[in-house]
Amino acid sequence: MSQRKGSGGGGGKGRRKPPPTRRSGTPGRPPKKEARGRTGAIDGRHKKPSREGLGGDQIEGIHAVREALLAGRRKVYEILLSTDRADAPDLEDIRVLAEQYSVSVRELGRAKLGSEARTTAHQGVVARAAALRETDIEELYRPVGDTPPFLLACDGITDPGNLGALLRTAACAGVTGVLLPRHRAVHVTPAVTKAAAGAVEHLRFAIVGGLPTALADATERGALVVGLDMGGDVSLHDLPPVDRSVVVVLGSEGRGLGRLARERCGVVASIPMTGVVESLNVSVAGALALYEVVRRRA
Amino acid sequence: MSQRKGSGGGGGKGRRKPPPTRRSGTPGRPPKKEARGRTGAIDGRHKKPSREGLGGDQIEGIHAVREALLAGRRKVYEILLSTDRADAPDLEDIRVLAEQYSVSVRELGRAKLGSEARTTAHQGVVARAAALRETDIEELYRPVGDTPPFLLACDGITDPGNLGALLRTAACAGVTGVLLPRHRAVHVTPAVTKAAAGAVEHLRFAIVGGLPTALADATERGALVVGLDMGGDVSLHDLPPVDRSVVVVLGSEGRGLGRLARERCGVVASIPMTGVVESLNVSVAGALALYEVVRRRA
Repeated sequence: MSQRKGSGGGGGKGRRKPPPTRRSGTPGRPPKKEARGRTGAIDGRHKKPSREGLGGDQIEGIHAVREALLAGRRKVYEILLSTDRADAPDLEDIRVLAEQYSVSVRELGRAKLGSEARTTAHQGVVARAAALRETDIEELYRPVGDTPPFLLACDGITDPGNLGALLRTAACAGVTGVLLPRHRAVHVTPAVTKAAAGAVEHLRFAIVGGLPTALADATERGALVVGLDMGGDVSLHDLPPVDRSVVVVLGSEGRGLGRLARERCGVVASIPMTGVVESLNVSVAGALALYEVVRRRA
Repeated sequence: MSQRKGSGGGGGKGRRKPPPTRRSGTPGRPPKKEARGRTGAIDGRHKKPSREGLGGDQIEGIHAVREALLAGRRKVYEILLSTDRADAPDLEDIRVLAEQYSVSVRELGRAKLGSEARTTAHQGVVARAAALRETDIEELYRPVGDTPPFLLACDGITDPGNLGALLRTAACAGVTGVLLPRHRAVHVTPAVTKAAAGAVEHLRFAIVGGLPTALADATERGALVVGLDMGGDVSLHDLPPVDRSVVVVLGSEGRGLGRLARERCGVVASIPMTGVVESLNVSVAGALALYEVVRRRA
């Protein structure tokens, strides 16, 4: 797989907005073992990681590691580089950032790095970091600046590549929070982090016990809950304007929205299928839905 | 990677419209060696494969092989199944179709099949088939039924996963033809076929010498040429109605549209970036552009 897969896009040159200023107390400090329990949190609003937590503590691939360092939202303890790629120009950037943020770099032989990595797409770089922290659900429903919350809820997505791709698109579309079910769904594994190409560093996550309950709760809070399913009531192109908080709900690969989750949606929209094939990838379907909401919120 | 990755989607259950009736002369016939030179073409409009042809002669993965058999657009010579997956229910369907269309099935050990496969995602099934044939460019600009042509032009996409994902979306969106540049771009490799999950069987392709020339030609033929680039003149959401033939042009990963290709576009549109990250995957950006055209054609 090409190393360029994760970067850029037909939409342009893969530029990234300037990274947010790192919070005081984080930059320049060497990682301390005893600090592990507390580091990584944006602030006190974040819950302790649960046993079935978000994950994200191992980051693989150039873009993902680079973003973890730049975003500075959580502690990066150590970076492992493959000796056979140690002089590669695309790793030089990582090395410079690591020095800037006082993160130790260790070089390993290719085979050894491969055994430390949990994906085959690590591109010669693996980072160990504080796990991502869950954000309180209350916090996710507070307006972000002037705009009402824009949430993405994933109903049982099991493929890490799909979840990662969705998260990347969500970060581009301005999603302000992601709801993931605790069970029967992938959390933020190294493969998800890799596919998201750094986007997980800019998103807030909440893990919910059951998605249908979380959707009923969203409606009670005044959010419009928009499900995406082939048998939807309206075409995605006919979605009404959205002037309040909104939750976009995506079903699992293959099966689509679960029955209960579907019943809790305020509107179920479908994507017009105008070709001979009727099988969009969930990350593509999700992108279309998220950008439709962007349009309806504008 | 999950075997379910290729199937279904948040948009629904991965249903497929009934396959088109197989053309007379194709079904049931055992593959004949002497017929190889002619088989695989839809009809006489198709050119001979060039030395730098489309490819597509090796098909890997369950969805891709299944669609090649069902679509019946080209000859499938032989199917190789992994012995260790020979009884898997998801391969049973392939076996039944192979028998129905008189395609020989050969079972190989896992290692042997692995050495025959050109991707690591073959899911235990590899098919050898007639290469995809190029369609004459004249043919691509003829209306399909009542609707004007809807073409996708790829300006130097190098990652097979991205091209495959794009082709899958294109087939869902009703794209009637794909323009691929002869050089510096991936053609239909096994990895593309796999990522496209069968969509290549339903699309028509033309390989063009130079994309800028092909776009100038498109404009001369009266088509609206819509480029996608971050520095676009208009937001994708403000695209005008499209009542004539249209060509959507996507740039390469990382670099976006080439300067010359960009100059030949009638309109260059950009995707609104409302989040902190500005780096959509090209297959996602392309999906948004294709579905915007679907909307503007409606």
